[in-house]
Amino acid sequence: MAYELYYWPEIQGRGEFIRLALEEAGADYIDVARVKGAGALMKLWQNAKVETPSFAPPFLVDGKRVIGQSANILLYLGERHGLAPKAEAGRIWTNQIQLTVADFALEAHDTHHPLGAAFYYEDQKPESKRRADWFRGERIGRFLGWFETILARNPKGPKHLVGARLTYADLSLFQMVEGLRYAFPKAMGRVEDGFPNVLALHDRVAARPRIKAYLASPRRIPFNQHGLFRHYAELDG
Amino acid sequence: MAYELYYWPEIQGRGEFIRLALEEAGADYIDVARVKGAGALMKLWQNAKVETPSFAPPFLVDGKRVIGQSANILLYLGERHGLAPKAEAGRIWTNQIQLTVADFALEAHDTHHPLGAAFYYEDQKPESKRRADWFRGERIGRFLGWFETILARNPKGPKHLVGARLTYADLSLFQMVEGLRYAFPKAMGRVEDGFPNVLALHDRVAARPRIKAYLASPRRIPFNQHGLFRHYAELDG
Repeated sequence: MAYELYYWPEIQGRGEFIRLALEEAGADYIDVARVKGAGALMKLWQNAKVETPSFAPPFLVDGKRVIGQSANILLYLGERHGLAPKAEAGRIWTNQIQLTVADFALEAHDTHHPLGAAFYYEDQKPESKRRADWFRGERIGRFLGWFETILARNPKGPKHLVGARLTYADLSLFQMVEGLRYAFPKAMGRVEDGFPNVLALHDRVAARPRIKAYLASPRRIPFNQHGLFRHYAELDG
Repeated sequence: MAYELYYWPEIQGRGEFIRLALEEAGADYIDVARVKGAGALMKLWQNAKVETPSFAPPFLVDGKRVIGQSANILLYLGERHGLAPKAEAGRIWTNQIQLTVADFALEAHDTHHPLGAAFYYEDQKPESKRRADWFRGERIGRFLGWFETILARNPKGPKHLVGARLTYADLSLFQMVEGLRYAFPKAMGRVEDGFPNVLALHDRVAARPRIKAYLASPRRIPFNQHGLFRHYAELDG
């Protein structure tokens, strides 16, 4: 039975980390709201019979299971599709890296919504500028530096974040680099060469046959001004 | 061999979710920076020989393993100390709830640091006011409502978040209620009676012998103005 992914149909957002894992796995899945509209998402989200409802999308349906929280969905898919080590130490380390990707992605989001979702970007522009200056000046380098370090320290070599094989964490780091290049092209252009292991991993992921096909397909929603990563020239520097 | 917990010695912060789990488990652990000072934390954090370094504290040392990210540490401890179901469905659901606690806790933190850690609270007071108004007005009720709902939908009854036994998610929800009461006494006083299952769970956790003993001990750091939860009268309403 096909997985059902429930996520907003018009953005990459947090759902994209799940889409990339499903695509790399060659899994049979339906991106429900893209096929049936956001109403189908709302319907399951608000269904009072679901014993494990999610606070927010994305959530994944696998038969009778409904699973939420991006990193948790990836933990689940990783075990099923060989996208994480089977041994506990590697599995836990992969999860730790994914949670750090999630923190990084949220900080990227907060550059355009520091006061929260109650206000449009247009109503928090000066605040966004202050937060984005810090994100560009300190946080991008600090996070990318951490990923560069753990790649360099991987006893199996710097080709993967965990061990000698691809994990969902590699896919997620690819997506972070994509998002940062979209949102902060000037800032990334200045600093990214300082993180050669991260860039090489990004390029290897992009060249994987299933990922390459996915990125070229209409299933990949282009970046836009509604998602996690947004490009506002005044926030780039 | 005792666990070693590495976290800031003067705050509850994110480390408190780990401390509560270790205390409830009756585990032998050393709260390293409280015993040896923050220098001991910095030393391991920056140790170039650690293959799995953390982006930020807390991290836990168990023999040769170094494990970071609060929810990930709890996933690890939960399996070892019976603080999560052994079966996958329950284990994944517990992790999903914990990640939602982490989101909630971060939003509580962001009320006093919406522009990030680059500025002191005193340098982002008007912004904090706007973000806190939204957090009090909408987010507290929305999050607590979700926890109330999942308690009510638990097929084993509303005494626990997952199944019929205590999990680390219960301990974490207890801590959220504690933190919100400290930071937002007026706002919580107005709304908390609307979440009777959440409050009853909080009280049951507080009455557990090991937790009760911990809370009364000097090991429990009092809430203060440096942690995740801070009380500023102007942010409560």
